[in-house]
Amino acid sequence: MNSKIQWLRNKISLQNIQGMIVSNPVNIKYLIGIDAEGILLITRKENFFLTDARYIEQVQSILTINDEIIVNDIADISKDDYENFFMFCENVGFEENYVTYAKYKDYLQKYKIHSFEETEYLIEKQRMIKDEEEIECIKKACQITDDCFKHICEYIKIGKTEKEIAFEIERFFTANGAEGVSFDTIVASGKNSSKPHAVPTDKKIESGDTITIDMGCKYKGYCSDMTRTIFAGFVPIQVKSVYDLVLKNQMQTLRQMQEGAGIKLISKMVENDFKLNGYDLVHSLGHGVGLDIHELPFINSKNDGILKENMVVTDEPGIYIPNNFGVRIEDTVLITKSGCINLTKSDKNCIIVDKS
Amino acid sequence: MNSKIQWLRNKISLQNIQGMIVSNPVNIKYLIGIDAEGILLITRKENFFLTDARYIEQVQSILTINDEIIVNDIADISKDDYENFFMFCENVGFEENYVTYAKYKDYLQKYKIHSFEETEYLIEKQRMIKDEEEIECIKKACQITDDCFKHICEYIKIGKTEKEIAFEIERFFTANGAEGVSFDTIVASGKNSSKPHAVPTDKKIESGDTITIDMGCKYKGYCSDMTRTIFAGFVPIQVKSVYDLVLKNQMQTLRQMQEGAGIKLISKMVENDFKLNGYDLVHSLGHGVGLDIHELPFINSKNDGILKENMVVTDEPGIYIPNNFGVRIEDTVLITKSGCINLTKSDKNCIIVDKS
Repeated sequence: MNSKIQWLRNKISLQNIQGMIVSNPVNIKYLIGIDAEGILLITRKENFFLTDARYIEQVQSILTINDEIIVNDIADISKDDYENFFMFCENVGFEENYVTYAKYKDYLQKYKIHSFEETEYLIEKQRMIKDEEEIECIKKACQITDDCFKHICEYIKIGKTEKEIAFEIERFFTANGAEGVSFDTIVASGKNSSKPHAVPTDKKIESGDTITIDMGCKYKGYCSDMTRTIFAGFVPIQVKSVYDLVLKNQMQTLRQMQEGAGIKLISKMVENDFKLNGYDLVHSLGHGVGLDIHELPFINSKNDGILKENMVVTDEPGIYIPNNFGVRIEDTVLITKSGCINLTKSDKNCIIVDKS
Repeated sequence: MNSKIQWLRNKISLQNIQGMIVSNPVNIKYLIGIDAEGILLITRKENFFLTDARYIEQVQSILTINDEIIVNDIADISKDDYENFFMFCENVGFEENYVTYAKYKDYLQKYKIHSFEETEYLIEKQRMIKDEEEIECIKKACQITDDCFKHICEYIKIGKTEKEIAFEIERFFTANGAEGVSFDTIVASGKNSSKPHAVPTDKKIESGDTITIDMGCKYKGYCSDMTRTIFAGFVPIQVKSVYDLVLKNQMQTLRQMQEGAGIKLISKMVENDFKLNGYDLVHSLGHGVGLDIHELPFINSKNDGILKENMVVTDEPGIYIPNNFGVRIEDTVLITKSGCINLTKSDKNCIIVDKS
């Protein structure tokens, strides 16, 4: 049996759960490598993937006999079949953070489940710790992102629009081995950069613009995430001091990120330093990166957890002056026993594009 | 007050519901035109949008005084504030098809709700019937899609890869007034076309390939959706008969789509004609299109509903021969009292590209 399914079976049996319905498609992709609509049933003895006719061929071509997963077309499943799946299971687990309330009620009734147990991000927590193969994919996604940033710094000229730049980033990704973007690319210039989640507009780059570029791609399903704030023509004096403050905190966080480091403490230190200077950290300091662009662990001052070896997380402090400008600097990093390895290696030294 | 919020208030009060938590971001976009993380609270007297610091500036710049929506930063909301929102509401509605089981429990506890009522796609059902402004946006998205298809037929040459073609489609959309794609573009050639949900690969177009292109863009948030199956160099004889069968059924469905038409009946007719010829319709015949690419109504033989004036739906029969080829032809259409208006007008006559 596939080792990840074996892990899941062991894990739930320790919690006196005999069966589980896995509905989150990202968890299904993690467990059995399949990207298709459907649900995975872990029953007492067998594993089933229930899907529909649109995906049967594709799924059969990916799974091997070693996966020990029985693929069923939901059109062929009778009322009795549904009731038989978990017949001998005292407790059945489900993903309460993914399944809607309506689906929860539907599952209860369709599968005739006696005791439906919340599993509290069981699979998502396992996904936090990456194996070698996963790390290789993220490294590759980060490398394509670095190459793209180098290219885009040459590409950006005064007069280009935010949309054109975002599009060129996405073109580069696809042309250079990525499957596509890992999230909608942010290119926010001038006043637009004051919105942490700005959407690229038709605004043209002007001399003196602060430009925040938040970008990432996917390689074999795994994401990268990097932000750089750069400048067109020159660095406005009032932005420079904010830039230096953000960069100082971003670098300091990098130095603290390692196995055993307290997430709350790391986050608090940035919050405090920003406050001392009259600013607020309005979003999390970072987040896990993997099959999802935002996944566990979330790096903020509400999280009492610690960093662990082989977690991959971002470090992305930012300061935003409403209706004026914003600065965010972000890397994707791999946590090790003695520190962290920065997987996005692009220059952070106040890059000025189109100096002419 | 914004007319859509007024509609919602009237609608819930008819069901003896005094307050509602709207969580589905597409429903929020529909009701108040906002694209930001957050939730909309309809309370006895007031409307609140709870969001976080990342979105406050953006939200404030979109809402006007006429919207009568109070914007709150969740960081500033106390335990008591939460409990006060619905203090005088006997019944509070929620979106059981969107809210996760965990969130449902969290809402119950945080807002101290006595009776939490399922609202059964209340807003989604209203969204089925488009107003003039919405129809104009969809028409524009469809027109850009038609223009793109014309362009892409010139662009495709033997030797181009599926990925290159998909990327050119996306480039054209963005360069011609669309916000972007409304879903991941499908370009599936040769054997790949047998998978209804194929992802573009590095496979090069070869002479004799059947190429299924499923594409759509967004204009002011509204989607278009169109599929054409075209051919490289020539039309293989065994594909032609399948193509003709699919096209015949697609056209017949177009002729039946009008106010009052039974969705089940329309779908059954295609299923039956396919069966008579030895094939199956493995997916729905169509779906609603609007702010979501797939929305109500779903056009399949399980739906007992009828079509109504100003619904916008797709008509997309397809036949797939595993490991061999597939044919799908799809239009986005507007339902009227006496028929339907085809909004995607691209040629369906067995187009052959790169004939040379």
